[in-house]
Amino acid sequence: MQIAMIQDRIVPAEELDPVYLDRAMFFGDGVYEVMRSYDGKIFALEEHLERFANSLSAIELTGINLDEIRSRVLRAFDAASIANAMIYFHITRGSEPRNRVWDAGLKPNFFLTVSELHDKPADKAKGIAVSTFPDWRWKRCDIKSLNLLPNVLASTAAARKGCAEAVFVDEAGLITEGAGSAFFAIRGRSLQTAPLSANILPSITREFTIKAGRNVGLTVVEECLTPEQAARSDELLVASTTKDIMGVIRFDDKPIGDGKPGQYTKQLAQEFRSFTT
Amino acid sequence: MQIAMIQDRIVPAEELDPVYLDRAMFFGDGVYEVMRSYDGKIFALEEHLERFANSLSAIELTGINLDEIRSRVLRAFDAASIANAMIYFHITRGSEPRNRVWDAGLKPNFFLTVSELHDKPADKAKGIAVSTFPDWRWKRCDIKSLNLLPNVLASTAAARKGCAEAVFVDEAGLITEGAGSAFFAIRGRSLQTAPLSANILPSITREFTIKAGRNVGLTVVEECLTPEQAARSDELLVASTTKDIMGVIRFDDKPIGDGKPGQYTKQLAQEFRSFTT
Repeated sequence: MQIAMIQDRIVPAEELDPVYLDRAMFFGDGVYEVMRSYDGKIFALEEHLERFANSLSAIELTGINLDEIRSRVLRAFDAASIANAMIYFHITRGSEPRNRVWDAGLKPNFFLTVSELHDKPADKAKGIAVSTFPDWRWKRCDIKSLNLLPNVLASTAAARKGCAEAVFVDEAGLITEGAGSAFFAIRGRSLQTAPLSANILPSITREFTIKAGRNVGLTVVEECLTPEQAARSDELLVASTTKDIMGVIRFDDKPIGDGKPGQYTKQLAQEFRSFTT
Repeated sequence: MQIAMIQDRIVPAEELDPVYLDRAMFFGDGVYEVMRSYDGKIFALEEHLERFANSLSAIELTGINLDEIRSRVLRAFDAASIANAMIYFHITRGSEPRNRVWDAGLKPNFFLTVSELHDKPADKAKGIAVSTFPDWRWKRCDIKSLNLLPNVLASTAAARKGCAEAVFVDEAGLITEGAGSAFFAIRGRSLQTAPLSANILPSITREFTIKAGRNVGLTVVEECLTPEQAARSDELLVASTTKDIMGVIRFDDKPIGDGKPGQYTKQLAQEFRSFTT
């Protein structure tokens, strides 16, 4: 590479900050995690680190010391001094002139942010609307990668309809998960969600929601729902790291239950919160 | 966002270079183009700009002035003074704290590089080996987006087998295209390639290869091939902006033709070059 141009400014190759050549920019060649803290304590840190290790391994990004990542997370969290924080971090394969085949000697790039979370109990009490979007994602959604353009398009389309989350429906007409959450239905005394596969993220909040479901006496069914089944369910909810359990009160303009988060949803949210203290 | 961390260095939010918050980093939220020049003249500039406009529109990235992009490309190409150059550029949706739903007022980021291309006639005379890889890509491969992790994984797996290109095979067992090229077979007097759909990029070199095929008297068949059909073809070739037409002499370890680029491949390459002068 001889010259670069940033906006309308020409930059000689030797003066270019390597961040512009990050493989995340060119290819989304990296993986990420999002964690949160409750009252000064990071929730499920080890689970997130373990999943991160799986994502790194799945894209063959090697040589990362997980102990070093853990210590960076803790140091940044400590420096930020935020009781209820969202911690985002990614590792990319490194910076080099654009080439799909990566250079084996490349040094990975680490980036992390800590932000204050503003939990809104009133929003949680009210519940959210969701809308469906075709699941355009790649075939390895079990990897938490930086290739998230379909999630961006789906989330923005949902937001324009006044919905707080998009729910992906695959070509077989089955719901996989939300654009940034796991998706659950309560049908009778069953808590139903898509089974783990390459089509969904092994969501950590999903695991804790399932645990909460068992604790409150629900039967867990790991089977995909159709949108029609979802719309006819007694209760619907989404589960994610930053918002834990959130009741769904509208599904593609159809009201769910009596238009408020249901009884089991509230029980699950309460049980979930008991895990975080 | 209160603080960030780059490698092991804590950076206050207000000191962070916005490039670290580029939506390309977090989501691959942008689209790109690659052009080349032959002997000081950019090939198919308008076609590339038109496709770029389509990609922008498909991801709803609005407010881009194509005339401004054209003038930046020409200015950078001029400044680089390279007769046989590769010009890469992308536009991302802009920089902001991470949020899947984009802010409508965001200012897009433009980035471009000019690099010298070293055409290797000896490599072209020899031909290349290719190997198949599952087509893990998303369902909108007609958009030239920055979500390219499957292409990265496929290309690197191919390179490790000594192959210069990976060829994607979808779940139906059909060849879609190469990880960075269009894929063609010569079968008798037919030139066969996958039809345009959401599963492949509307490759500009593909269009010129089809035109070259018609000019040399081949019948164009737009139908997907299976790997078995490909391996039994008289000739195989891949077509891309930077390497134009390249004969394939091995397909998943099976020799093609007599192990050298075939007669029609050479004719197509010659015809193609006539378009570039």
